[in-house]
Amino acid sequence: MPVNLNPPVAANLYPVAGVRLGVTEAGIRKANRRDLTLIELAAGSRVAGVFTQNRFCAAPVQVCRQHLAAGEIRALVINTGIANAGTGEPGLQASKQSCQAVARLLDLRADQVLPFSTGVILEPLPVERLIAGLPACQSALKADGWYDAAHAIMTTDTVAKAASVQVDVGGQTVTITGISKGAGMIKPNMATMLGFVATDAVVSQPMLDRLVKEVADESFNCVTVDGDTSTNDSFILIATGKSRARFETVDAPHWAEFKAAVIGVARHLAQAIARDGEGATKFIEIAVSGARSKDEAKAVGYAIAHSPLVKTAFFASDPNLGRILGAIGNAWGNDPSLRDLDVAKVKVWLADVLVSENGGRAESYKEEDGAAAMKPAEIVVKVDLGRGSAQGKVWTCDFSYDYVKINADYRS
Amino acid sequence: MPVNLNPPVAANLYPVAGVRLGVTEAGIRKANRRDLTLIELAAGSRVAGVFTQNRFCAAPVQVCRQHLAAGEIRALVINTGIANAGTGEPGLQASKQSCQAVARLLDLRADQVLPFSTGVILEPLPVERLIAGLPACQSALKADGWYDAAHAIMTTDTVAKAASVQVDVGGQTVTITGISKGAGMIKPNMATMLGFVATDAVVSQPMLDRLVKEVADESFNCVTVDGDTSTNDSFILIATGKSRARFETVDAPHWAEFKAAVIGVARHLAQAIARDGEGATKFIEIAVSGARSKDEAKAVGYAIAHSPLVKTAFFASDPNLGRILGAIGNAWGNDPSLRDLDVAKVKVWLADVLVSENGGRAESYKEEDGAAAMKPAEIVVKVDLGRGSAQGKVWTCDFSYDYVKINADYRS
Repeated sequence: MPVNLNPPVAANLYPVAGVRLGVTEAGIRKANRRDLTLIELAAGSRVAGVFTQNRFCAAPVQVCRQHLAAGEIRALVINTGIANAGTGEPGLQASKQSCQAVARLLDLRADQVLPFSTGVILEPLPVERLIAGLPACQSALKADGWYDAAHAIMTTDTVAKAASVQVDVGGQTVTITGISKGAGMIKPNMATMLGFVATDAVVSQPMLDRLVKEVADESFNCVTVDGDTSTNDSFILIATGKSRARFETVDAPHWAEFKAAVIGVARHLAQAIARDGEGATKFIEIAVSGARSKDEAKAVGYAIAHSPLVKTAFFASDPNLGRILGAIGNAWGNDPSLRDLDVAKVKVWLADVLVSENGGRAESYKEEDGAAAMKPAEIVVKVDLGRGSAQGKVWTCDFSYDYVKINADYRS
Repeated sequence: MPVNLNPPVAANLYPVAGVRLGVTEAGIRKANRRDLTLIELAAGSRVAGVFTQNRFCAAPVQVCRQHLAAGEIRALVINTGIANAGTGEPGLQASKQSCQAVARLLDLRADQVLPFSTGVILEPLPVERLIAGLPACQSALKADGWYDAAHAIMTTDTVAKAASVQVDVGGQTVTITGISKGAGMIKPNMATMLGFVATDAVVSQPMLDRLVKEVADESFNCVTVDGDTSTNDSFILIATGKSRARFETVDAPHWAEFKAAVIGVARHLAQAIARDGEGATKFIEIAVSGARSKDEAKAVGYAIAHSPLVKTAFFASDPNLGRILGAIGNAWGNDPSLRDLDVAKVKVWLADVLVSENGGRAESYKEEDGAAAMKPAEIVVKVDLGRGSAQGKVWTCDFSYDYVKINADYRS
């Protein structure tokens, strides 16, 4: 059961002028599942992306990087079931063939198409089935296809993930709508499993390239379920330019408001992944302050968020909070600058309960307060490192029997 | 159920001349459990140790470092139930008081005593109960107390861990006997949760200081259960000097044989920890070759061994081997030198089955061969990085429902 993530949101997803989406059941890996999505972008749209840092990055990620460098993107094709990762040269060819097939259908060049895959690694992509499914996607293309697409990109997700806002920016209405998927193999490094956000604002390519990185760092790059950075992580930001709001230079008026709105949508999509993390029963925010750098803060956040001992204690609602100290003490493994961490200066709170200071248990701490703070479905862990003014956040979920069950059964 | 680790070994543990051990039920945290161990060393014994790199290291670890620096160690006192970590200045005082009490009993100075604790973090050590239990430990001191001590240092361990050999070194019989504990919060960094190995050989202090590090690197520093480096890891090597085998300089004859025998005992103790890892149903060795350095090889080994996705696939005997590629692709997070890893040169075997080469699935690979290779209780994963001649091994276990159960219930 996802934590505090209750669709339906379908009624609240605003179409983005210049974007049409269509889905179908292509039978990529299993029958009777929507597993293929086509997204068509109007001419003049600008697109930017960030991708996984995994060295075994998937074939479609490699093709995306090439095609984004080439320029004018007009379509995205997304399949689930097979990740087309760990597939070598044949995988690369299959991914390119899928782009060629989309190009033929929509009268584009192949390098105007971005391909995405998600699913099982190391198995070949049945590209002929993908290609056979494309005409049905094309027939289904519609401006309000976002909610269908949110469903068609799911794998072990239990709910479709989508977010949408309309904001007034300097007197112009800007629409921002996005979808994401991911529940396991989640520790995005530049981007999440799959995230797509579109706006109708006019954004210049340099501004969009910069924005996609900043947004990823404030959203998808703060989420972890199991610490396993995927081979297929991709986050794509699209600006169709169909509205009158224009952001073409760094000093464009209202840029900060626009950016905040995009970050808001991306954060919702990113947090949705942790809320729907495999087996999740709790959503946990780890807010670290008093660091010398943002990297330090996030290193501590991830050390806590990746500790199986901390995560199982949250599942059990057991205030076995020494495990959090143990994780903080290991964070230098994520960022060597923390080797000289003075633990006597570290403070830890669970919600508003001060748990630890001066290297030990806080004098005011009572076990029953800790127990009460562990019970809610949403918990904030606050850590002050006492050595600087930088801060950072990480979002994660707990670790339950069902995580093991889901991942022991995934392919069966 | 521990994997291929079937005591009783009691009959096979050789006493080490100069070492006596006694245990009792001190009621540190729970009644009716042997939870306090006293080890007495003959005058002239030499002792060396390596300890956790966790910044929140436990009070006894801090005291051990001070006392080892001071010199002549004659006793060790070990409690379970409470880790005395995350306990600040009062914890440090409690640990020192335990040394003072042992010193009074055995007519020693307090800095001749090494203290060790293991159990729950962030709770105060009931040092008065520990001190009250010491006379019973003293009465119980005996040369063949190793097996009792192996039991008395257990926490979530399901079996006592001990190993013992007698080897002929240059015509002299040398005895090496050791015990260890640990099942969760295991990713030793310099040492395991607790490991104690004694020999009756004469070993000079400089040679012993060097040996303890080399042995730890070849044994305890190759084990991981959950990637959580403990606050209390300690590995202690004792040489009582009661036999005629002498190793006082680097060029001492038969040093290599002696070292190999000590490593053999320590490896048995280290592997026992993974075999008895919390919830373990399988023992997994990850052997990485073709690396540019040993650090690179171990970084890849740990990336695989820490991936919850890989570990749950082993639990399910599901040859979902793309997860191993995903983990290898992330290993640069453990060692940045792997950022330029060429995945096209990486080969992966499961037992003798070639799974992956040329960046994809091996042409010869058949799913049924992979499935068969996943079934045994002991599995070797081999990885060749194809970029150098260094190698390294990591031992771990799978990730089962019972890991979650044990860690959700640990304090209750």
